[in-house]
Amino acid sequence: MGMTMTQKILAAHAGLSEVKAGQLIEADLDLVLGNDITSPVAINEMKKMNRQTVFDKDKIALVMDHFIPNKDIKSAENCKCCRDFACRHEISHYFDVGEMGIEHALLPEKGLVVAGDAVIGADSHTCTYGALGAFSTGVGSTDMAAAMVTGKAWFKVPSAIRFELVGKPSKWVSGKDVILHIIGMIGVDGALYRSMEFTGEGIRHLSMDDRFTICNMAIEAGGKNGIFPVDDTAIQYMKEHSKRGFSVYEADADAEYDETYVIDLSELKPTVSFPHLPSNTKTVDQAGDIKIDQAVIGSCTNGRIGDIRAAAKILKGKKVAKGVRCIVIPATQSIYLQAMREGLLEIFIEAGAVVSTPTCGPCLGGYMGILAAGERCISTTNRNFVGRMGHVDSEIYLASPAVAAASAVAGKITAPGDEI
Amino acid sequence: MGMTMTQKILAAHAGLSEVKAGQLIEADLDLVLGNDITSPVAINEMKKMNRQTVFDKDKIALVMDHFIPNKDIKSAENCKCCRDFACRHEISHYFDVGEMGIEHALLPEKGLVVAGDAVIGADSHTCTYGALGAFSTGVGSTDMAAAMVTGKAWFKVPSAIRFELVGKPSKWVSGKDVILHIIGMIGVDGALYRSMEFTGEGIRHLSMDDRFTICNMAIEAGGKNGIFPVDDTAIQYMKEHSKRGFSVYEADADAEYDETYVIDLSELKPTVSFPHLPSNTKTVDQAGDIKIDQAVIGSCTNGRIGDIRAAAKILKGKKVAKGVRCIVIPATQSIYLQAMREGLLEIFIEAGAVVSTPTCGPCLGGYMGILAAGERCISTTNRNFVGRMGHVDSEIYLASPAVAAASAVAGKITAPGDEI
Repeated sequence: MGMTMTQKILAAHAGLSEVKAGQLIEADLDLVLGNDITSPVAINEMKKMNRQTVFDKDKIALVMDHFIPNKDIKSAENCKCCRDFACRHEISHYFDVGEMGIEHALLPEKGLVVAGDAVIGADSHTCTYGALGAFSTGVGSTDMAAAMVTGKAWFKVPSAIRFELVGKPSKWVSGKDVILHIIGMIGVDGALYRSMEFTGEGIRHLSMDDRFTICNMAIEAGGKNGIFPVDDTAIQYMKEHSKRGFSVYEADADAEYDETYVIDLSELKPTVSFPHLPSNTKTVDQAGDIKIDQAVIGSCTNGRIGDIRAAAKILKGKKVAKGVRCIVIPATQSIYLQAMREGLLEIFIEAGAVVSTPTCGPCLGGYMGILAAGERCISTTNRNFVGRMGHVDSEIYLASPAVAAASAVAGKITAPGDEI
Repeated sequence: MGMTMTQKILAAHAGLSEVKAGQLIEADLDLVLGNDITSPVAINEMKKMNRQTVFDKDKIALVMDHFIPNKDIKSAENCKCCRDFACRHEISHYFDVGEMGIEHALLPEKGLVVAGDAVIGADSHTCTYGALGAFSTGVGSTDMAAAMVTGKAWFKVPSAIRFELVGKPSKWVSGKDVILHIIGMIGVDGALYRSMEFTGEGIRHLSMDDRFTICNMAIEAGGKNGIFPVDDTAIQYMKEHSKRGFSVYEADADAEYDETYVIDLSELKPTVSFPHLPSNTKTVDQAGDIKIDQAVIGSCTNGRIGDIRAAAKILKGKKVAKGVRCIVIPATQSIYLQAMREGLLEIFIEAGAVVSTPTCGPCLGGYMGILAAGERCISTTNRNFVGRMGHVDSEIYLASPAVAAASAVAGKITAPGDEI
């Protein structure tokens, strides 16, 4: 029996010629990631272990992104803890205000993750890097602590679901619509502890930003990881962003999959997850009359340049509807700068949107757009659980940047192109 | 005995030919201002008074600025309260996310305050508008509530201190340095309940932005208001920003002043208020070796285009020092857009600073740059009280945008020009 793409990467990192689903292994890690919320916990765990050295100062990334610039004293103390730790251990990849961005947009952009890597991060959306053909997954802060000391982590080798993507998506169908459609189809536990391996000729129509979005939300279907084959698009991206060598792993022809879904991208429509689960999807043409109070365009899911461009395309020359707050959050300083140079930020301001410095902010109810009781937000983020963005009586509708922008213009959930 | 400029405006608004210091009067108001923190209290007070109509929907300004985009559920509920009130009473000048800015930068920019006006605002820095030759002062939320109903407020007519400004300030001396120098000289209660009337030929060297900054901080010397004569610079500003007619009041030649200070602007140096009082000033060349963790450039005191330009002039082609977070906050959407079009925001991002959407944010410890224990911030804001920007063991150093920017580059408090 052959191995899946994920299994091949894990086997290589465990020093084994073969692994099987369900097997417990210990793998060497290429990168250990933490943010300003999870790293302080991990740092404290290291203290408890009485371990005061890190395995490799060049293979740890600490990214201050959730609540920075600091939203309160607690977050300021958390960042200070990380900053002191990074300084003490001479961590090479420490990212603070001014050089930073949302972790899952930042690490690929900085070239810190490439194909074939095994990466863990104390953040559930660490699965994002599968877009580059890496194995990456979210862990708890204790695992992060152990990994910072040992450079290793244990895994139960996941089985896999194969998603064969065929056809070409229509104009306003993005990676976000693909993954929302899939989660709607298989449910929030549809891929529990399994790999979501994306294959098929349709992949060539998906940009890297689309793929990052798709892998980013693998966890919202319960997936252990999401992963794409390494094609020319991925290689081109790595060449532009990284100096590291990469390794291409391919699933064996006889790899076993628990299930295979064939998804015709040409049949998909812009999709919205209604409250209060990502799996509660409707196509936007079936959304009905849902008035909104706020639109958030950003996050580790949809704050990349392609996302910002898509939103700007809709908002250009238009105005955000009266009574709607539209908040645009480029995911990294570099994306912010790029968007400014392309004139996109000007489009947003002229449309009556505001542009925030990079932060996770509203996605997890941190700051920069928290909801009051009864308010509704259309958001390009990844979770619409009860109270996720503020009051327990508020509602979040997940969608693509194009749908969020069109909805901001119309004042209600609206398909791109229908917003005038 | 003649009247001061302030007394003349108050007399006119009280329908009296003459008023004297100490006299209690009731004055008609041209504008009643509230923000997202104080307006909900005032709205609630109106309910308690059982008064459900406002005196004039065109003479009330509600500006959401302190904690927006909402930083938490409480601030979201506060904004919702204001929004609902503004909608119910058809308030003409309601400013929310996307059309907003920090109130004291926004109202002059929108032409809502002109010379000769009497304005109250439920925010202590309402004294800013004296730069245009208006009487304006901060009040409590209860006074705001009564004023929204009646269009009137009572005042004890203030006596005045005259500040005669002579000479031309040198290159890096701004309005901020002038007012810090004055507060250092007379103390934080030096002008308690009195008008600070600025006169003298030196005024012609001060831009409107300099004057706004100076009047803005009148309250930091305890002043009831600060006020400038209406010269060509002020008239030009009003013509550019407002369609309203204005009235020019001049102090009588025999007006009585409690004190007169002559200040030679050419002798001033860039000035810094050390913790924990605005009056605790030193010139920057006497600051000593004060390392900083953060620099904040913005606020109702120093977030105007002139301020942003001054900071950009310093930061152009340079880098924020390692370990320093530099946060730039243009005060309004319009200033943000202007700064972007002039290429200033690009300078900040390239320097490693971050640019926030307009907000009061860190100034009052709200969000967007809160300090941990032991951290030091150089800030262009107006108050450096204990714990104002975060932890009680943090420190705030008040300065001009040029000094803050130079310090961000040097990593310690530094005079503009010495930052390389």
